[in-house]
Amino acid sequence: MEVESSTAGAAAAAAPLSPGDFRELFDSVDAFLFDCDGVIWKRDRLLDGVSQTLDFLRSKGKKLVFVTNNSSKSRKEYAKKFSSLGISVSEDEIFSSSFAAAMYLKVNDFPQDKKVYVIGGEGIMEELQLAGYTGLGGPEDSKKTAEWKSNCLFEHDKSVGAVVVGLEPVINYYKLQYGTLCIRENPGCRFIVTNRDAVGHMTNLQEWPGAGCMVAAISDSTQKEPIVVGKPSTFMMELLLKKFQIDCSRMCMVGDQLDTDILFGQNAGCKTLLVLSGVTTLSALQDPANDIQPDYYTNRVSDFLDLLGA
Amino acid sequence: MEVESSTAGAAAAAAPLSPGDFRELFDSVDAFLFDCDGVIWKRDRLLDGVSQTLDFLRSKGKKLVFVTNNSSKSRKEYAKKFSSLGISVSEDEIFSSSFAAAMYLKVNDFPQDKKVYVIGGEGIMEELQLAGYTGLGGPEDSKKTAEWKSNCLFEHDKSVGAVVVGLEPVINYYKLQYGTLCIRENPGCRFIVTNRDAVGHMTNLQEWPGAGCMVAAISDSTQKEPIVVGKPSTFMMELLLKKFQIDCSRMCMVGDQLDTDILFGQNAGCKTLLVLSGVTTLSALQDPANDIQPDYYTNRVSDFLDLLGA
Repeated sequence: MEVESSTAGAAAAAAPLSPGDFRELFDSVDAFLFDCDGVIWKRDRLLDGVSQTLDFLRSKGKKLVFVTNNSSKSRKEYAKKFSSLGISVSEDEIFSSSFAAAMYLKVNDFPQDKKVYVIGGEGIMEELQLAGYTGLGGPEDSKKTAEWKSNCLFEHDKSVGAVVVGLEPVINYYKLQYGTLCIRENPGCRFIVTNRDAVGHMTNLQEWPGAGCMVAAISDSTQKEPIVVGKPSTFMMELLLKKFQIDCSRMCMVGDQLDTDILFGQNAGCKTLLVLSGVTTLSALQDPANDIQPDYYTNRVSDFLDLLGA
Repeated sequence: MEVESSTAGAAAAAAPLSPGDFRELFDSVDAFLFDCDGVIWKRDRLLDGVSQTLDFLRSKGKKLVFVTNNSSKSRKEYAKKFSSLGISVSEDEIFSSSFAAAMYLKVNDFPQDKKVYVIGGEGIMEELQLAGYTGLGGPEDSKKTAEWKSNCLFEHDKSVGAVVVGLEPVINYYKLQYGTLCIRENPGCRFIVTNRDAVGHMTNLQEWPGAGCMVAAISDSTQKEPIVVGKPSTFMMELLLKKFQIDCSRMCMVGDQLDTDILFGQNAGCKTLLVLSGVTTLSALQDPANDIQPDYYTNRVSDFLDLLGA
């Protein structure tokens, strides 16, 4: 898909965001979509200047939306996290992949009497419950073990009609086996995943295996490709458009990851800005092997204030 | 690679093994290579007639070799298992993927002062030790947990020069993170896997996720493709040929899995026979989507006795 660009004659390679670029970008968009991990915060630490930058954008009438692939929290818990960091954000402004998973079932008329097996955290369980679905597994199965004995039959619930896989901090063989059996043996069972991020910021200091790791495991054992509801799939954009009346071309997606955030923005026809405060380094962006180029890049979100002389 | 066939004008599709076919096959090979799970046994139960069949083949001067992707045991432990089932097999006749992983390091001059991180069972640990290497992880890391806290740095041994992944009954996030960090951060660290079987017979009654599941997880989190030492890679055949002086065209590979056993036999230029006593059903074999066709198929190994009127 062609990337829309606000700069006439822009080259394929991303340009560092200049004051002139940003003025033009700022004037041409009504909404800024922010990824969270590596953009707004790292783990539990708010990145410098983020609070002032968001206040400034709101004061100028810009709509702010937060779009995260991290499925560990529900929207409600994300709103609490923002609040604990001194930022006021309403649940409606948060689009998390945990919420998207529950909404995907809803939008596709998943029957209320079918159950959902979860390989992932509380966030997915909570969103499923809010959407009226019965979730099995998740944290409840964290201490369970599978017995490898002759004549041992692993029982699973035949009424499971969907398996949702997200980031799972307590992955074990029991969960892998349960999810695998549901997908392999329950007719029509759906295989839905929050995202396929290879790594994520589980701590401030290192990248750790992300949801993509658990998704790959189940995709291999079932020999099935999943339905992805998080970035770069545009399903969250569909949800967002139902909520807000903004043209995609008048949105700017701000993220730290090329194959999720920037690709998501491009897939949806948004303007795109990469920040270097998260998983992507400048050399990774400029690596000839990288074929995902945002419209612009800058070091961090708070550069907005300097660029506009705010 | 072209499949060698003992039947002139054989069609692409595998033929059911007839008495005439088997007589011809029997006379044209000096060695039978057997997969174990689903061929010789299921979990701890010897399949009917296997013992008599193996005795008969030995009495006719055929060399018997056992080639298994299951890395949970060392060769020594496999010999014990055969013995406990009433079959006398020497360690030299067993080629397990646990042994192959250790031999791959040896053949490639892996330095003795470098360590090997293992995601897998005792079989790999034992074979590494026998080959003179220091294995880390494996069963020892089964109860360890990774803390997802701000400022938490996950320490790993910088002298790990290879990560070996096999079937891991006690997979956890700690092991995934340890293996991922070694491959991502230790320069030149090798990523070696015993096999990529999607499922296996962990019990008599069901197929459960196999080593492919753990391999896919690490391959995703590191964004690296592994070196496979088990079937269908022909590395175990190289080891086998060093031991025995038999021409590949005078061997018959007998297995229950198309994409490991039969492909291994074909890759090595052996004759191939699928038995339907394991993971592959006749309808899976005859599915138009299946492009791996053995020379012949039969229900079980003990059919040999009937076919030769033994």
